[in-house]
Amino acid sequence: MTDDALEEPQRRRRRGAERGQAPPPAPRLPQPTLPFRPVEIISSDEVESIHLASLAVLKEIGIDFLHAEAKEILRNIGADVKPGSDRVRFDPALVEAQMGKAPRQFTLHARNPERDLVIGGDRTAFCSVGSAPNSFDRDGGRRPGNHHDYQNFIRLGQSFDQIHLWGGYPVEPVDIHASVRHLDAIFDMLTLSDKPIHAYSLGRERNRDAIEMARIARGIDDATLEREPSLFTIINSSSPLRLDTPMLEGIIQMARRNQVVVLTPFTLAGAMAPVTLAGALTQQNAEALAGLVLAQSVRPGSPFVYGGFTSNVDMKSGAPAFGTPEYMKSAMIGGQLARRHGLPYRSSNTNAANSLDAQAAYESVFSLWGAIMGGANLLMHGAGWMEGGLQASFEKMALDADLLGMVIDFLRPVKTDESELAIEAMRDVGPGGHFFGTAHTQARYRTAFFAPMISDWRNYESWRDAGSPTALDAANKLFKERLEHFVAPPIEPERREALEEFVARRKAEGGAPTDF
Amino acid sequence: MTDDALEEPQRRRRRGAERGQAPPPAPRLPQPTLPFRPVEIISSDEVESIHLASLAVLKEIGIDFLHAEAKEILRNIGADVKPGSDRVRFDPALVEAQMGKAPRQFTLHARNPERDLVIGGDRTAFCSVGSAPNSFDRDGGRRPGNHHDYQNFIRLGQSFDQIHLWGGYPVEPVDIHASVRHLDAIFDMLTLSDKPIHAYSLGRERNRDAIEMARIARGIDDATLEREPSLFTIINSSSPLRLDTPMLEGIIQMARRNQVVVLTPFTLAGAMAPVTLAGALTQQNAEALAGLVLAQSVRPGSPFVYGGFTSNVDMKSGAPAFGTPEYMKSAMIGGQLARRHGLPYRSSNTNAANSLDAQAAYESVFSLWGAIMGGANLLMHGAGWMEGGLQASFEKMALDADLLGMVIDFLRPVKTDESELAIEAMRDVGPGGHFFGTAHTQARYRTAFFAPMISDWRNYESWRDAGSPTALDAANKLFKERLEHFVAPPIEPERREALEEFVARRKAEGGAPTDF
Repeated sequence: MTDDALEEPQRRRRRGAERGQAPPPAPRLPQPTLPFRPVEIISSDEVESIHLASLAVLKEIGIDFLHAEAKEILRNIGADVKPGSDRVRFDPALVEAQMGKAPRQFTLHARNPERDLVIGGDRTAFCSVGSAPNSFDRDGGRRPGNHHDYQNFIRLGQSFDQIHLWGGYPVEPVDIHASVRHLDAIFDMLTLSDKPIHAYSLGRERNRDAIEMARIARGIDDATLEREPSLFTIINSSSPLRLDTPMLEGIIQMARRNQVVVLTPFTLAGAMAPVTLAGALTQQNAEALAGLVLAQSVRPGSPFVYGGFTSNVDMKSGAPAFGTPEYMKSAMIGGQLARRHGLPYRSSNTNAANSLDAQAAYESVFSLWGAIMGGANLLMHGAGWMEGGLQASFEKMALDADLLGMVIDFLRPVKTDESELAIEAMRDVGPGGHFFGTAHTQARYRTAFFAPMISDWRNYESWRDAGSPTALDAANKLFKERLEHFVAPPIEPERREALEEFVARRKAEGGAPTDF
Repeated sequence: MTDDALEEPQRRRRRGAERGQAPPPAPRLPQPTLPFRPVEIISSDEVESIHLASLAVLKEIGIDFLHAEAKEILRNIGADVKPGSDRVRFDPALVEAQMGKAPRQFTLHARNPERDLVIGGDRTAFCSVGSAPNSFDRDGGRRPGNHHDYQNFIRLGQSFDQIHLWGGYPVEPVDIHASVRHLDAIFDMLTLSDKPIHAYSLGRERNRDAIEMARIARGIDDATLEREPSLFTIINSSSPLRLDTPMLEGIIQMARRNQVVVLTPFTLAGAMAPVTLAGALTQQNAEALAGLVLAQSVRPGSPFVYGGFTSNVDMKSGAPAFGTPEYMKSAMIGGQLARRHGLPYRSSNTNAANSLDAQAAYESVFSLWGAIMGGANLLMHGAGWMEGGLQASFEKMALDADLLGMVIDFLRPVKTDESELAIEAMRDVGPGGHFFGTAHTQARYRTAFFAPMISDWRNYESWRDAGSPTALDAANKLFKERLEHFVAPPIEPERREALEEFVARRKAEGGAPTDF
């Protein structure tokens, strides 16, 4: 990564802040690169055991595909499709033949080329929270998702450079009719933000509308769109061992246009997957490979991301648990499996807390630990996720942006050149001295260290005298400041008009069917 | 690690809890083992650059040793000691000659042999908070450390199996006169607890008293004590590049009796160390190696732990920062340096928060991330540390015990045998089914997953109806329950009497000098 490119905007920002000036617009941080090899917590033999067990599941048990065209496609490539049944079984050789076609990495394009992202290899990218049914902030409390909150989440997420792309609607705007919700929501995402987008797979019309809107926003033709992936969709299997109709339609529509499919089995150990981690990961791998085979049969070489979301449930209540030791191990082994297959890897920043307390923070950072050390190339739900996904929180989005900023700084390589080794500075200061006044320090102190947005490092007495603010207080203040000062990114007027026209036309046509 | 040994007590505990019975006494978790290779975030060439820069510092700048006998010992092994000066310079060959003598791992003995710990290799061990001047709990607020709180911290830490040993007094009992404080404090530590202990290096009498008390508590003779390290001390350099009188006395007294020296430079980048990470780590390494050379000159082969505590200060206020990206990177590179030298490695669980909020939690888990992935063999301040070390918190100790429990579970190897791969369970359930009722789940669900003490996984409505408890509420409840049900571990009456007699005699003699 270009380290200088990172330092320059930070230097400008911090200098401005020190002079008491309003800071300049959010600096453009470069996309982070993982500077170390991801951790391998099981051996390659053990990875192979899981993979071979998955192949046995695909051959002997099979997967239910609830979609006639999908079954037809799979039958045509030689899968064992039983007439009159949804069950599809795969010979290991057939699975292996489809593997290796998808790219190890690809560029996901934004309407602003500066926001393009490389997905895969040693790069990582962080999504906003996606798909929460409820929104929350401390002042307004918890409420069902709505258009007003949706737009504010888009504004807030756009304002944080630590959030690289959208991973669905941060909160579901349920006050927009389902037939046209995707049109308004994607319009907002493409106009209030200039980052790469996601589209839900909820019927072919929605996929097609989203693909067309991404094309219009980028101002490109169809051929360019098919060369340059410009949006992604999350495909969740209906675990165990089943892919439902809209999800299969999504794979077909997106892969056919060379757009990005992220296949994430929803394998909660003890509920929709075996109670053992190895078993849940075997099932995850089987379901992900089933999706891969379909996508690569639709269009060989189309971009595909291997998703891992294996966690466990609380066996007393059935409640899903996140950021647990089991989650961390699954996140890391998921990365090992994805790399074994030569595929980009998706993980998540999760927690099951109901309020932005210590639990929300430790479960999130344990999740990040698993994801980052596991080599995640795409981090879903990076900022704002609460309550196991049932709540999008404005304060949590602000706090997570700071956590992601820390991760980004952690991933910046440490330099060890002569000037950094600082022998001369130690000679200047000598035993018993202090480094603050040295030239070596003075030349570097403004940009030497990560500058947090949330953390309060005042001593106890100063902090108490300031009213004992908590991290929640700081996050509440930060998100409001960001919304207050939000400036939408520029968009070419003709593209905006074309998007407006498309939305108006599709609304006039009645939008999309709501029988999904 | 013996995985079965871990599962058995957990199974008993959880079964008991489910039947509504009082749980049996705290299960004995085995000491954790790191199941993966620690992360290398810089190359071995870069590690070598830092090490060579340290050797240049030791040769060209030198270290001030404020202790006549220490200087004499170093002069005798060939160090360059200037007459009339405290400055000592070391030829690289001299330093390298002393390296490799200390053991890569050793056993630290407790008075209860079941609490013995292996320090080094691929093992890790977690200390309680140490040395806080203030104590805190939500009901009593923040107050100066005192004997009552001190004893309760010992009881609380003893009750958590996730805390393996003591890393100093959890809080300083300032209401005990300094001349006899170490006698009362170590007596409490050895009688209210049966875990390995730490002694402060605050003058030779205190080191000698602590060594003798450890010997008495174990019921062993002097020769056995010198074969079996039975306590440890933390030696902090007075950075930059200086070791003061009591610390050097501590190295001499402890190494002479083959007891454990943990040398931890206090290298806050930008204050007592260069503002660059590579520079601060160069200084850390130089100071640690200076201590190593002295300890191995006093007694070749005596147990020595390489400590890393490099963090940064907030350059605006000078306040120390912890759990930062810089801290994480330093923790990992510190581990690389320690392993290069063939020494056990000490890191810490730190944060700079003033209250047990999200900041306290995320800074702690980022610290744990750096320490654990950096291969720490000894984690100082594992449970209870707040405010950059100025506060020991009862609630934080309870919460950290749960975090450490999660780390311990994370470190348990994932099994991938046929039964764990669960193909038969998937066949039983089939596409679209549910795993809860299967035999595979029923046989395992009680012990399948980590059972947290703090995390609240209820859904929002149940949680709200229960009064919206936060993690702080849960930690407050947990620590009080533990203190209420505390039972001191058994101790042989004759050992207790001998300890009482020793304390009485030393008090009658006036204790230790207070001119440190």
